[in-house]
Amino acid sequence: MSVTAAKGFTAAGIAAGIKQNGNPDLALVVNTGPRRAAAGVFTSNRVKAAPVVWSQQVLADGELTAVVLNSGGANACTGPKGFQDTHATAEKVAEVLGAKGTEVGAGEVAVASTGLIGILLPMDKLLPGIEKAAAELSEHGGEKAAIAIKTTDTVHKTSVVTKDGWTVGGMAKGAGMLAPGLATMLVVLTTDADVDAKGLDSALRGATRVTFDRVDSDGCMSTNDTVLLLASGASGVTPAQDAFAQAVREVCDDLARQLIGDAEGASKDIRIEVVNAATEDDAVEVGRSIARNNLLKCAIHGEDPNWGRVLSAIGTTRAAFEPDRLNVAINGVWVCRNGSVGDDRDLVDMRYREVTITADLAAGTESAVIWANDLTADYVHENSAYSS
Amino acid sequence: MSVTAAKGFTAAGIAAGIKQNGNPDLALVVNTGPRRAAAGVFTSNRVKAAPVVWSQQVLADGELTAVVLNSGGANACTGPKGFQDTHATAEKVAEVLGAKGTEVGAGEVAVASTGLIGILLPMDKLLPGIEKAAAELSEHGGEKAAIAIKTTDTVHKTSVVTKDGWTVGGMAKGAGMLAPGLATMLVVLTTDADVDAKGLDSALRGATRVTFDRVDSDGCMSTNDTVLLLASGASGVTPAQDAFAQAVREVCDDLARQLIGDAEGASKDIRIEVVNAATEDDAVEVGRSIARNNLLKCAIHGEDPNWGRVLSAIGTTRAAFEPDRLNVAINGVWVCRNGSVGDDRDLVDMRYREVTITADLAAGTESAVIWANDLTADYVHENSAYSS
Repeated sequence: MSVTAAKGFTAAGIAAGIKQNGNPDLALVVNTGPRRAAAGVFTSNRVKAAPVVWSQQVLADGELTAVVLNSGGANACTGPKGFQDTHATAEKVAEVLGAKGTEVGAGEVAVASTGLIGILLPMDKLLPGIEKAAAELSEHGGEKAAIAIKTTDTVHKTSVVTKDGWTVGGMAKGAGMLAPGLATMLVVLTTDADVDAKGLDSALRGATRVTFDRVDSDGCMSTNDTVLLLASGASGVTPAQDAFAQAVREVCDDLARQLIGDAEGASKDIRIEVVNAATEDDAVEVGRSIARNNLLKCAIHGEDPNWGRVLSAIGTTRAAFEPDRLNVAINGVWVCRNGSVGDDRDLVDMRYREVTITADLAAGTESAVIWANDLTADYVHENSAYSS
Repeated sequence: MSVTAAKGFTAAGIAAGIKQNGNPDLALVVNTGPRRAAAGVFTSNRVKAAPVVWSQQVLADGELTAVVLNSGGANACTGPKGFQDTHATAEKVAEVLGAKGTEVGAGEVAVASTGLIGILLPMDKLLPGIEKAAAELSEHGGEKAAIAIKTTDTVHKTSVVTKDGWTVGGMAKGAGMLAPGLATMLVVLTTDADVDAKGLDSALRGATRVTFDRVDSDGCMSTNDTVLLLASGASGVTPAQDAFAQAVREVCDDLARQLIGDAEGASKDIRIEVVNAATEDDAVEVGRSIARNNLLKCAIHGEDPNWGRVLSAIGTTRAAFEPDRLNVAINGVWVCRNGSVGDDRDLVDMRYREVTITADLAAGTESAVIWANDLTADYVHENSAYSS
């Protein structure tokens, strides 16, 4: 499954020794064609890791033959040497694929990295690792690739949607620093549908805008976020753009939900529905403000339906609303009506992992959903010990 | 000391029974003149508590005779009844002061409340409490007033600056939800300088802009923030506006620093200096972004000089900078130079409570200082159990 669910792709995941604990840390995904169209979406953080800068450049022509990904080091804030290392990594992939009979230049190889910031990658381990990964490329290698990109993820994340004769599949990693504008998140999606770069780009941007971009685990935005979509055309089917975009969105939605479900230290997944907003932008702004309110995140952790903190968060936005017309439900109980006390908060059952907060702005007909996590002592422990 | 350090003021702090634990919860501050000029700054949260709405109205004419403050309940999100209660509170203060011979209307009485959101105040306890407080008004009551406004504060906060024949003093409460646009923070400042409402307003806005507005404990903004400055003119001295503004700023700076030092669950006070910014707004935007990065706040808690998280936070702003010219020092050690690895991070000593992060944007000559706290398991525990 994963990136090899679609026809026309091989993948591998191996331990190159980049991670000191010996866990898998290098993944390779290769598009065996016949088409090699691709699209990508990257972090909006202005401090971008070397592999992000590289991959944005090589994607400019809408074609990719391979993606190499490593965990165990982000290659961010590493200066000119870091960029040279990324370049050398792509060159090495081109070289080993060439030796296997696939003619490819470094400019057709995207690179993605995740792990600690500010540390150079151990190239003496990474480059031999690429040879090892190339030797293990397989049409069944998708799951191993998904495992090799994990950092603090407790599970690997994959998703597949199959339609009439074509498939979209993918893998994701990410367990913290999940925030709008993407997250410390690496995602590779593949499809055997016959779609050109423009169609891929449109579908991918449309999907990330309402999925990965609306996941806000802890308000922090990474330097390395990368989402790639590669099309092999191996199915020989060209789906309608709408149907294709819908399939890409389904896979992204599934992966985004898995990311929230595995966020570092979290004990709750919070679905924030903002309804009756004047505009979709208003709904998103309000949803993010609620998602990032540390006091509310603590309250949800404590299973306390603290709607006052929801109102307080809404009040910091520029969205259209009247304070005395706001309504808030927590798990379906309207604990705040017209900006004041509503139904009995003791009716709210918060025992389960998923918690839904509904914020009714009473200002229009637009809506948006933002996913967040609670704030826990485990989050603090995990992130006060781990340099990333 | 506190609000009675300046001549022309009496104050009291008593236990009215609003707090169920019997601790002091009601404070009264009275300006005995001869002047009754006043200015105020309030939360920029659009969801404003009833006492904020009330006090903004009564301050419109630049005069106040008294301020009544309660802890144990914020009277926020309490609808029309909440506003009626605030009005009744001011009326009661006017009545009891009138009975003591001070002719005053409810429109000269500011009200401030702090505590839980979404719960009506127990007026059957609050109103008799006002009588009790009025009976205890004293020129030495400042400290008791400061104690009565505490919520989760572990210590009461007061400050006094005395100049040539005139004094500015004050009290503050606040231990969480400290964020730009003020905090869950109630502050009453008094002076016996003979300054009119316009001079007070100018001095107070100038001071809060660079003190309370640059304190960002947890990124959360309250519904109740209130900072008042009352002038009695009792010293008979009219200081130069600059000297007066400077004294007000000193008192605000001292109180703001005390607020950060007592933030809920914090183990570190983080001084974030942004230097060489193109504009002061850029410096403030970058400082706030750093201040609100949960991952960095966790790292500081773990005494981990994680400069990658600082760069990651800077990268989310719109400030003018080039990523490869950014420099970051932690406690004086330049761990990041030119956007990449700098001096040995092991040189950074983070054992003490105060931590200084210096972010050099290399883009100009402007600067700003933002104060923040670390993120700790104690913060989570305190805020997952306490409904506010």
